[in-house]
Amino acid sequence: MDWTLFAIFLAATVGAGATGAMFPTGKWYLNLTKPSWTPPNWVFPIMWTSIYILIAFAGSRVAGRDDSGVAMAFWAAQIAFNALWTPIFFGLRRLWGALPVMAGLWLSVLGATITHFQVDFWAGLAFIPYLIWVTIAGALNLMLARLNPDQKPLRPSEIEV
Amino acid sequence: MDWTLFAIFLAATVGAGATGAMFPTGKWYLNLTKPSWTPPNWVFPIMWTSIYILIAFAGSRVAGRDDSGVAMAFWAAQIAFNALWTPIFFGLRRLWGALPVMAGLWLSVLGATITHFQVDFWAGLAFIPYLIWVTIAGALNLMLARLNPDQKPLRPSEIEV
Repeated sequence: MDWTLFAIFLAATVGAGATGAMFPTGKWYLNLTKPSWTPPNWVFPIMWTSIYILIAFAGSRVAGRDDSGVAMAFWAAQIAFNALWTPIFFGLRRLWGALPVMAGLWLSVLGATITHFQVDFWAGLAFIPYLIWVTIAGALNLMLARLNPDQKPLRPSEIEV
Repeated sequence: MDWTLFAIFLAATVGAGATGAMFPTGKWYLNLTKPSWTPPNWVFPIMWTSIYILIAFAGSRVAGRDDSGVAMAFWAAQIAFNALWTPIFFGLRRLWGALPVMAGLWLSVLGATITHFQVDFWAGLAFIPYLIWVTIAGALNLMLARLNPDQKPLRPSEIEV
């Protein structure tokens, strides 16, 4: 295992994961109508921390290997959409607007999973929990949008404080 | 040029760049005290669009090549920090809090520039405008934080609408 690669990929996930700390769930999320199967809040940071470590591991195994080009492009795409989702959902409260981001995230994670498997079995396997989790997160996002039709988006640029 | 790679890297930049459209500058930014050399608003989307196309090109040239591992890890790291900065600055109004993100972005762009040069001259060259631009953006962020000391951060999760 190349620890330099692992550290840089992990830094990328720390960047994306910082959105979770910077845009906390808070009162607003607490008051949303949620499906009965919504995971409790404490599950999310545990899942994301595990997933971030796993995909940093996956990236560090695949980077620089023969035929790793598409896998690396998908790795980059998933982390961009990953960083984008939380600010759209929790910062702008765009329950519907977050869904195309979730679609981009899901597709890029699917692409990363398949292409990491093609290069290295363990790297592909390390993406599986992520693929399952974004499927659940996507379903939750869709249900929250449906169950809270009167939710208004925030427009930070227009707020006077 | 591998158009599949280019398209996936470009998708990653579209994800990161969507923050610019989702968190517009608006009234709040207009009213900030700015240094005399602040670029006019119309410059930003032109610069970012150019930079995103250039780095998608750079990534697509380097991905899968021998010894491209660290370059790919830095490519992924820069796009995560890139996606993070706008929501922190415009969504949370954390003028000081955006600076560590800017530092992470700057370091990952520097790392990407050097390591892309090591694999492919044109890919490295394509990162140069980005490195210059994040240096300017970092200086602007620092000046805005200094010139607007009374600026209060927004806490979206606490806002009742």
